[in-house]
Amino acid sequence: MNTPNSPIADVQNTVDTRHIAINKVGIKSIRHPIKVQDKSTGVQHTIAMFNMYVGLPHNFKGTHMSRFVEILNSHEREISVENFPVMLRDMVAKLEAETGHIEMNFPYFINKTAPISGVQSLMDYDVTFIGDICHGEIATSVKVVVPVTSLCPCSKKISEYGAHNQRCRIEAKVRMKSRIWIEEIVRYLEKAASTEVFAVLKRPDEKYVTEAAYDNPKFVEDIVRDLALLLDGDDRISWFTINSENFESIHNHNAFAELTRDKR
Amino acid sequence: MNTPNSPIADVQNTVDTRHIAINKVGIKSIRHPIKVQDKSTGVQHTIAMFNMYVGLPHNFKGTHMSRFVEILNSHEREISVENFPVMLRDMVAKLEAETGHIEMNFPYFINKTAPISGVQSLMDYDVTFIGDICHGEIATSVKVVVPVTSLCPCSKKISEYGAHNQRCRIEAKVRMKSRIWIEEIVRYLEKAASTEVFAVLKRPDEKYVTEAAYDNPKFVEDIVRDLALLLDGDDRISWFTINSENFESIHNHNAFAELTRDKR
Amino acid sequence: MNTPNSPIADVQNTVDTRHIAINKVGIKSIRHPIKVQDKSTGVQHTIAMFNMYVGLPHNFKGTHMSRFVEILNSHEREISVENFPVMLRDMVAKLEAETGHIEMNFPYFINKTAPISGVQSLMDYDVTFIGDICHGEIATSVKVVVPVTSLCPCSKKISEYGAHNQRCRIEAKVRMKSRIWIEEIVRYLEKAASTEVFAVLKRPDEKYVTEAAYDNPKFVEDIVRDLALLLDGDDRISWFTINSENFESIHNHNAFAELTRDKR
Amino acid sequence: MNTPNSPIADVQNTVDTRHIAINKVGIKSIRHPIKVQDKSTGVQHTIAMFNMYVGLPHNFKGTHMSRFVEILNSHEREISVENFPVMLRDMVAKLEAETGHIEMNFPYFINKTAPISGVQSLMDYDVTFIGDICHGEIATSVKVVVPVTSLCPCSKKISEYGAHNQRCRIEAKVRMKSRIWIEEIVRYLEKAASTEVFAVLKRPDEKYVTEAAYDNPKFVEDIVRDLALLLDGDDRISWFTINSENFESIHNHNAFAELTRDKR
Repeated sequence: MNTPNSPIADVQNTVDTRHIAINKVGIKSIRHPIKVQDKSTGVQHTIAMFNMYVGLPHNFKGTHMSRFVEILNSHEREISVENFPVMLRDMVAKLEAETGHIEMNFPYFINKTAPISGVQSLMDYDVTFIGDICHGEIATSVKVVVPVTSLCPCSKKISEYGAHNQRCRIEAKVRMKSRIWIEEIVRYLEKAASTEVFAVLKRPDEKYVTEAAYDNPKFVEDIVRDLALLLDGDDRISWFTINSENFESIHNHNAFAELTRDKR
Repeated sequence: MNTPNSPIADVQNTVDTRHIAINKVGIKSIRHPIKVQDKSTGVQHTIAMFNMYVGLPHNFKGTHMSRFVEILNSHEREISVENFPVMLRDMVAKLEAETGHIEMNFPYFINKTAPISGVQSLMDYDVTFIGDICHGEIATSVKVVVPVTSLCPCSKKISEYGAHNQRCRIEAKVRMKSRIWIEEIVRYLEKAASTEVFAVLKRPDEKYVTEAAYDNPKFVEDIVRDLALLLDGDDRISWFTINSENFESIHNHNAFAELTRDKR
Repeated sequence: MNTPNSPIADVQNTVDTRHIAINKVGIKSIRHPIKVQDKSTGVQHTIAMFNMYVGLPHNFKGTHMSRFVEILNSHEREISVENFPVMLRDMVAKLEAETGHIEMNFPYFINKTAPISGVQSLMDYDVTFIGDICHGEIATSVKVVVPVTSLCPCSKKISEYGAHNQRCRIEAKVRMKSRIWIEEIVRYLEKAASTEVFAVLKRPDEKYVTEAAYDNPKFVEDIVRDLALLLDGDDRISWFTINSENFESIHNHNAFAELTRDKR
Repeated sequence: MNTPNSPIADVQNTVDTRHIAINKVGIKSIRHPIKVQDKSTGVQHTIAMFNMYVGLPHNFKGTHMSRFVEILNSHEREISVENFPVMLRDMVAKLEAETGHIEMNFPYFINKTAPISGVQSLMDYDVTFIGDICHGEIATSVKVVVPVTSLCPCSKKISEYGAHNQRCRIEAKVRMKSRIWIEEIVRYLEKAASTEVFAVLKRPDEKYVTEAAYDNPKFVEDIVRDLALLLDGDDRISWFTINSENFESIHNHNAFAELTRDKR
């Protein structure tokens, strides 16, 4: 134990003799306000959940957890997403590490226009920025989750009338060679569905999306394949993993399809 | 601090001078295996999450948390649901309390037969037993959550073809004058939907449920009203609160309706 | 079905003959950006999850779900919390209802100063505004959830050294006669704990909070009682229900205490 | 659409021309009762959540989702874990696939004896069996999550008295060359902690675990390193990834460490 006037011991900084390096060590599930660049309105304010880790060499007993949180608090109140690579460099510098990893998950809002009435409303999407730094080299990817409608081709084909449909969740994680807007990735995912969804639909819009879904039936298999074709066609994307999950309206379980592609 | 050989102090048992009684104190979110009586197969084994509380008079500093867990472990390995009133009496006796409350939430399985093919499969339902004891008087209620299909009457009416439909969650909490099987409550909820759901549906079954839902469109409002009529008609039920929640296939938010009725 | 040129039918507006009024009907789990007045910085931007319901008289078949979402989108992009009563009045007016209910749940950030080092960092709190309107009369309440440290008095008393402690979650839902800042309610909850928590603690701060918790042991029972005394002493508060939940460090289940008080 | 008397079309079985194979397609989040072999009592009944996927060749439009659920229902009511490899073979056979993947997550109970009083009580652990089959070759791994106590070495070192401690969650996913009981993996994880946790602790036990934790302080870094040493020493284990997460008692965020090791 400390005697009252001694300097406070730095336990984390002591030597470790187990000879075991740790891949990732840091803080998990901390919330902080952020600012994200928005294709249409310039900037939007939102709230992110962060995970921040560094690699720990075998000879150190522990990392300094408070420094991770200090990085979050070292900017103005809101962290700007443009600073994401800066945060990665900062983190490995302040923690004297060679590798680092940051995940930053936040709701992102896009103002959508209903297809017939033209009424506008905000839709929320789940977005995650994932960054890795290794000896100064940075690699980032983006994950976007988009709710859509899927309508079952089998149910449509075999039934006299109607077809079961449901909310479906499409997820894409992509690595890029050059910048793509969140809005562009969201569009790819919405185009791969039976139809996209909206926060406000007036009756003429509801008629439109109902018929549009019926005209465009898709299995979860179709959704990931059509999305793969769209992402294959965008040269800015070098790698992706995508999945589609139906909250089946006729079951209490989900239908799921997943596909990974390295374009290099 | 204790001296090594003194009897161990009972801090909870000391006098409290703040003159504040506590409505509920106990343990929350503890899992334990249970046995439930099953209308068709006699008994089924499942896993319950328990909350167990007693009222604490103003003059006691604390309750004895370990005694709650001892009650769970005082039966054979699996707790039998028939012992639910016994558990309530045990709990207030062992904790020297005048009031007590137990919640016991578990998945319950029913073997269902697909409507055309006759294929059988297990469906899971969420069931909660809730018991209150007050000066020896016991009151119990049961909450049942049932996944179903709902199909939108407006979408059907205004569209040339198709109609949006989705997974819907119906919940009923009921107080009874005499015993009702879980299976009977589940049936009421499934009857109030556009159509019920199954774990296995072969193609002729899928055709059947698709058309059945289209033939029976219901808003969340219709579902709670039709369910209210069914529960009104069962004299064993004295009180209920019910709700219906659509995971809308055309939105990223839910439609919701709730209705409470005291039949006494 | 509609013929192409007929006006689109309004199914919701048709007469219902089941003679059953519905307590609450509307939309659930929709996210939207908001602005909240902040005691220190003027205003903060955050993201809220909304539930919005009205009462439906027995003679109407359905409510108009899209109008709820239009209310959310009728302000500038971000909804201002000062408009909460306005939203309630708007909602019952636009939906031609006599009763209405809105819940609005959001993370709220407070800049805290570490006790010894003075380092500043943002802490997140969960806040919910709940409003009811009935024939023009509005009643609102606020729910605040605060993470703190609790240290067990029994463990401290009976052990030669050390004492088990853990993250604890205190929740208060209060009704007010006159305005109270979120920051003030948070302070009451933090004062009722063994010690408050911070996002950044440097080593001298960690020493301070460790010793402070050891000097101030509290059961969940003590926390709700001490909090009740604090809320009893504030004349702006007319009613409250509070609870405290320990994520016990020595168990896989939680300790819980709840207390409700009507001061009128 | 079907004419009434035609055989029902098999849409899934039609040819796909997009030339895109799908890595995983199947059902997600379906619950079913299971039986697990138990080291001490022979067998225990519990409830599992299943994900079941196969690879889909590029030339098929879709998989047959109902067949996955039929496999779950083709055994007696409860699926026996010994049948896990059989289920994998069954699944690829029935779905005419070359690769398959099953995840099966369930609570598992172990009867533990309190360290001083000897009182017995059941503790719940989260276990997942993961199986892959590829051209007849099966590879399986097991993931076990164990709640424990961790006590901070820094807080102990720098404070005059006390030390912050908290519930910690240790997770290990291991691949094995020969069989290991769930109970054995659980023991490794509990040994790596400051101290293990129990459902029932009487006062002498609480004194014991409080002091034991204080005598054995560990960072999340220490826990994964000590666990790595234990798993390194067991020749039945060929590969593992482990992590440790502290629900910090002095913060509203978590401390986390992760380590992966291939022993081959």
